[in-house]
Amino acid sequence: MAEIGLIGLAVMGQNLVLNMERNGFSVAVYNRTAARTEQFMAGSASGKQITPCYTLKELVAALARPRKVMLMVQAGAPVDETIAQLMPLLEPGDLIIDGGNSFFMDTERRAVELQADGINYIGTGVSGGEEGALWGPAIMPGGQPEAYAMVEPILTAIAAVAEGEPCVAYMGPRGAGHYVKMVHNGIEYGDMQLIAESYDLLHRVLRLDAPALHAIYNEWNEGELQSYLIEITRDIFANVDDETGQPLVDLILDEAQQKGTGKWTSQQAFDIGAPLHTINAAVSSRIISAYKAERVKASEILKGPEGAFGGDAEAFVHDVRDALYAAKICSYAQGMALLRAASQEYGYNLQLGEVAKLWRGGCIIRARFLNDITRAFRENPDLPNLLLDPFFTEAILSRQMALRRVVATGANLGIPVYAFAASLAYYDAYRTDRLPANLTQAQRDYFGAHTFRRVDKPGSFHHEWHA
Amino acid sequence: MAEIGLIGLAVMGQNLVLNMERNGFSVAVYNRTAARTEQFMAGSASGKQITPCYTLKELVAALARPRKVMLMVQAGAPVDETIAQLMPLLEPGDLIIDGGNSFFMDTERRAVELQADGINYIGTGVSGGEEGALWGPAIMPGGQPEAYAMVEPILTAIAAVAEGEPCVAYMGPRGAGHYVKMVHNGIEYGDMQLIAESYDLLHRVLRLDAPALHAIYNEWNEGELQSYLIEITRDIFANVDDETGQPLVDLILDEAQQKGTGKWTSQQAFDIGAPLHTINAAVSSRIISAYKAERVKASEILKGPEGAFGGDAEAFVHDVRDALYAAKICSYAQGMALLRAASQEYGYNLQLGEVAKLWRGGCIIRARFLNDITRAFRENPDLPNLLLDPFFTEAILSRQMALRRVVATGANLGIPVYAFAASLAYYDAYRTDRLPANLTQAQRDYFGAHTFRRVDKPGSFHHEWHA
Repeated sequence: MAEIGLIGLAVMGQNLVLNMERNGFSVAVYNRTAARTEQFMAGSASGKQITPCYTLKELVAALARPRKVMLMVQAGAPVDETIAQLMPLLEPGDLIIDGGNSFFMDTERRAVELQADGINYIGTGVSGGEEGALWGPAIMPGGQPEAYAMVEPILTAIAAVAEGEPCVAYMGPRGAGHYVKMVHNGIEYGDMQLIAESYDLLHRVLRLDAPALHAIYNEWNEGELQSYLIEITRDIFANVDDETGQPLVDLILDEAQQKGTGKWTSQQAFDIGAPLHTINAAVSSRIISAYKAERVKASEILKGPEGAFGGDAEAFVHDVRDALYAAKICSYAQGMALLRAASQEYGYNLQLGEVAKLWRGGCIIRARFLNDITRAFRENPDLPNLLLDPFFTEAILSRQMALRRVVATGANLGIPVYAFAASLAYYDAYRTDRLPANLTQAQRDYFGAHTFRRVDKPGSFHHEWHA
Repeated sequence: MAEIGLIGLAVMGQNLVLNMERNGFSVAVYNRTAARTEQFMAGSASGKQITPCYTLKELVAALARPRKVMLMVQAGAPVDETIAQLMPLLEPGDLIIDGGNSFFMDTERRAVELQADGINYIGTGVSGGEEGALWGPAIMPGGQPEAYAMVEPILTAIAAVAEGEPCVAYMGPRGAGHYVKMVHNGIEYGDMQLIAESYDLLHRVLRLDAPALHAIYNEWNEGELQSYLIEITRDIFANVDDETGQPLVDLILDEAQQKGTGKWTSQQAFDIGAPLHTINAAVSSRIISAYKAERVKASEILKGPEGAFGGDAEAFVHDVRDALYAAKICSYAQGMALLRAASQEYGYNLQLGEVAKLWRGGCIIRARFLNDITRAFRENPDLPNLLLDPFFTEAILSRQMALRRVVATGANLGIPVYAFAASLAYYDAYRTDRLPANLTQAQRDYFGAHTFRRVDKPGSFHHEWHA
């Protein structure tokens, strides 16, 4: 009998199966189209402890009890359909694991529905792409603790390892795992946009070409910015187009695409009232980039400032590096605070130290500084904001002037630095005891009698405003 | 027989009834709790052509055919419940009008459901608060054109008038009216946040007190910024607290509240892929303001820059004024472009000139410069972006340097100017032919094989990136 079943043999599914098998687990597999199963069995699965099944009934029959079935099918309706087909074949105590990119609210609903039928349910984020799935992804499972216990050995075995610890941990009940994965992706959007803006500044302000940029990101990757995304950015600048001999990045169309998980994060943060300036800016920046044809036309009409950069180039490179790190800290502070707010809103009881821990390997946002974030939340699980951890307080205080100079330079020279500016606006708002929202409240009371509170006494007040 | 019926006698409902009656229409009214109806009849409705009804059956029986029933009940479930109760009493050809702040997707659903039963349906935004409802609101109706024709005389009679034109126009089918109202509210959030930031700059950079601010906003209200919101801002600074003798605005708690329509606008713009930088920043700024306790604590730890303003105070006031106008133009450009995108997405066929026209009076965002927006879209209904209208091109070109200086000053002095910075980022991204999204696409292809397009040839490409 196989220890686990997996449904959906696209590349991610295949690679997870191979990863499990390599780690000593026997796997039964099923795919809706049999041809793909046959192909898989004749190819990379050949000669391995992998059992092909051609009906769901066959798959379920091949599994040891209590059965564990992992779905790697497309998010949305296909997940519901597969669950509906599985249900008559399973029995109470069995476990379904959804390893796709499901919206956490769908996972919430499915968890409740299946629990009523006695079926355990885990919704888990799996990050790291095809390579990660094969050699060790970051895994973010949510569901019943006892359901997690059923698959903990398998998930621990296949997960990436960072700093000697597996990149997997129990996140919380119901949709907690998919929530954490959603925020991971939102943070990824923020990181990518901040890097894009740093590139834009170096490229357009200092006129640096791809080889020079390669050298800079290579250097940055040796220090506090060390991360997978900086590493691949460095590499990208070294890749040359075979046909033209030009740096390939220069030939790529500047319309960013998206699959929606960054957008979900922003929309969700609006819903629960968590400030998410940097990620919002990142999602919006992808959106406006897609208006390429309009931008090209507008560029002929809407001229920018005429001034040129008059500063020291080397100092500016250092400023951009420090600004990138400072803005990244602000973005993670927002992301972790969003998780904290969601934990209260949805009763997830998230351990932010565990979240940061498992992001240190396998996933797109893996980075050296996640060690510091892990340490911060392990030392103080109730830390209200990452910026208040002494290490990060010092890090931001010593780099805030660079961030300010970079935002001002972008503004003065006409280079959009939305994510940098949003990060700074977050920092400056968060550290301001008295914001101008008193005026906003006065206006709301003026035109809509919405009332206001006072700083000098409790209660709710309305004023008959006069001209 | 009454010409129209109205359900829901909260202040907005009462005032709409009085407005209709004052303009010569007989109205039958119903409220769920009879006491309020009796109170209304004994009070402001006394002696008028207003018929009290104490059951829905009575109300429907009091109406001339085809019947017109306007709902002024709370958005959400109460609207559905009231419609369900009305349905057995109505007959094909009758008309229901929802005048509340319904989410446009709910209106879409109801319009389709009721159409199937032969009932006409109008969802209409009504803006202007209690005073507007009584003396002339801005009205944004969506539904079947023939349904609008049934109530056009009434709506035209009760609407505000601006520049000799009524502040009402047919918006489009189904949810079009509530969509336009939602965007109106989003724009209102943007305007309010930009004004709040202008206040914060003048107050904290130049140390201006309430009387000085009163004088400045009074002067601004005489020029291109003339608008209801600048007018009430001016007034607010002149209102003194009776108890303490201090300017009341200084005593109001700086936690902005919200009722959700700004948030809807941001979330919806993310869904349809429209850049909405300024409004997003406004919603986020309200959110972070609500973290007052955390901000107060953080203010002791996260110190800002040490520099002080060294420029000319009078010049800075002018810069802030010009920046406010420039940022406002950017915000409206985004709002109108959102409407254009929604019009395509949902088949609304919105006439942006008509939208701007009716916002010129009665509503919170009424402003002199809406005349210019109305003119721009009437002259060129297909204008892709407000910034490309020659009047607004000139307006932004001549003020962009002020906006840049203001954003840089905020960054350098540690004052959050998120909506200003977001407006500038929008301007600079929209007018940039080549954004750094090529790097984003390279990264996505590197880690996820998401492919990219090229600038030099058509097609979709994947590259085997190497270190």
